[in-house]
Amino acid sequence: MPERNTKPPLVAVTLGDPAGVGPEIILKASTSPRLSRHCRILIIGDRGVLEKAARLIGIEAPFVSIPLPDEADSLEGSVFIYESSRLPGSQVKWGRPDPRWGAATLEYIRRGAQWALEGKVQALVTAPISKEVIRRTNPAFTGHTEFLAQLSHTRRFGMMLAGKRLRVSLVTVHQPLRKAIRQIKTKRILETIELTQETLTRGFGIKEPRLAVAGLNPHAGEGGAFGSEESDLIQPAIQSALERGFRVSGPHPPDTVFYRAARGEYDAVVALYHDQGLIPLKLLHFEDGVNLTMGLPFIRTSVDHGTAYDIAGRGTANPDSLLAALHLAADFVRRKPTWP
Amino acid sequence: MPERNTKPPLVAVTLGDPAGVGPEIILKASTSPRLSRHCRILIIGDRGVLEKAARLIGIEAPFVSIPLPDEADSLEGSVFIYESSRLPGSQVKWGRPDPRWGAATLEYIRRGAQWALEGKVQALVTAPISKEVIRRTNPAFTGHTEFLAQLSHTRRFGMMLAGKRLRVSLVTVHQPLRKAIRQIKTKRILETIELTQETLTRGFGIKEPRLAVAGLNPHAGEGGAFGSEESDLIQPAIQSALERGFRVSGPHPPDTVFYRAARGEYDAVVALYHDQGLIPLKLLHFEDGVNLTMGLPFIRTSVDHGTAYDIAGRGTANPDSLLAALHLAADFVRRKPTWP
Repeated sequence: MPERNTKPPLVAVTLGDPAGVGPEIILKASTSPRLSRHCRILIIGDRGVLEKAARLIGIEAPFVSIPLPDEADSLEGSVFIYESSRLPGSQVKWGRPDPRWGAATLEYIRRGAQWALEGKVQALVTAPISKEVIRRTNPAFTGHTEFLAQLSHTRRFGMMLAGKRLRVSLVTVHQPLRKAIRQIKTKRILETIELTQETLTRGFGIKEPRLAVAGLNPHAGEGGAFGSEESDLIQPAIQSALERGFRVSGPHPPDTVFYRAARGEYDAVVALYHDQGLIPLKLLHFEDGVNLTMGLPFIRTSVDHGTAYDIAGRGTANPDSLLAALHLAADFVRRKPTWP
Repeated sequence: MPERNTKPPLVAVTLGDPAGVGPEIILKASTSPRLSRHCRILIIGDRGVLEKAARLIGIEAPFVSIPLPDEADSLEGSVFIYESSRLPGSQVKWGRPDPRWGAATLEYIRRGAQWALEGKVQALVTAPISKEVIRRTNPAFTGHTEFLAQLSHTRRFGMMLAGKRLRVSLVTVHQPLRKAIRQIKTKRILETIELTQETLTRGFGIKEPRLAVAGLNPHAGEGGAFGSEESDLIQPAIQSALERGFRVSGPHPPDTVFYRAARGEYDAVVALYHDQGLIPLKLLHFEDGVNLTMGLPFIRTSVDHGTAYDIAGRGTANPDSLLAALHLAADFVRRKPTWP
């Protein structure tokens, strides 16, 4: 298909929860002139909902419906829509979670993942969903990341959050802190180091990334005075990674390692639990952070925020995180068209 | 003593570990013209060490020795020294911790606290020490804060870290994270809220401070899905504080509350464990953060960094945190000359 190579990559974007800010930020992002030079987007969603969002922000919905991704290559334009379902736009109420939209929301993701796996789209970017809404029809659903891993039979995966000044990857994610601490094991730390290394080299194009691993305890345990996880669990993982030739250091005192990374000393910090990584990431990149899944057999990025029901329907939602997610996905495609 | 009232407040500054960056940053700070308009400083330390530091950075040691704080009022100048001991400057090696200086270092603090308790100095500012060095002669020593609380028979105290954009107070401090989580109790959270409220009103002069309490778990537990400490321990403390008329909210998702505070929504965040508060604080205020002790019967601030043995003796240490600590102490004195 020589046509595809002459055009920017085609990135699938799921609509997310129809009642959240997803439709609005997708429309706002889709009109960015800078974006259209970097990628074409295929929105997987509902036309009725998008048109409703277009009226909200007072623009023309700027896209052509296509039945299959391949069709995009023979058409002009850079924004397309695959009409995954026919939700009644008039019944979708901004800011009101509604279990009736759960199945459609899940299907956007399934469809996008399928095309990404088949190479019909070059990357998948996801808009925010409500896990609670999806669970009403699909009780086993735990989140985008786990769902995509399951669809692609991926067992080794992880989450990275990335902004211009700071990148963090997470050893544990959505558990109570007590439980997360118990799940921090040498094997999982090493796996996260490896995933981070892969993502920085392949995706971000950094030849020999400098990785920092955070400690768990205050002052990284202060030589054992405030805990032993540093020597018992973290140090062995770092040692193994060093033996593989990685440029990795730590365990570092958590309260300074993110400052040092943001100052340019490290390309990423491996954080041991959700808030250890997300507190500094959101402090620097609340508006423009990108969530990306490491280890999948395709490129997947996401906004770094939720459905924001509280501001949905006002027209004030900020598309910066979605734009950053789209640009990052397109960058990854350019650096490594076949993935992983 | 009418003379005292016509002059800026007299603030005691302990020298800290003689082999660390304390002497150097004290000298650098003491020559700040802006500082001398806000306070006079009485260094409690060793002349020989200060002269050595003065040679290091190529300045004249600009101070007069006095035998008692009262003497300062009848003298010109804004920098004085109380020669607490006679350490041989030639034997103090920059960057080399030495147990021989432990007793002298501890005595600087004891002397400063005594004068602060007696009102002979209006505030106490401490330079960094090495706990390990002091423990060699005084095994029970656990840190400045606990030592000062003990000297002043204070049972209810806490730590706040303050910068221009963010203030955080800590419910737990120097324990392994596992243990810190177990020590988070409703009573201690409420006590920290109260101490924070007192410090913001009396010290910072904020009439009705807006306090945010962080949650413990990701997304503050997401309604119980990721932990129950929010409803079991934190919510009851907030409820009690609200009943006392405090403007307090929470438990907030930890990954966004510090961003919101830095943006101006809150005057301080009550953080539950060391790194929850210190990661965001140091990200924004690595160079100019101030550590202050809440609940003591006198004003005490401190630098927010350690002895920095790795750069001691190079002349490159940054005095910004000490300057900020001195200015904050002087501000507190002006707002509330008798303390607490």
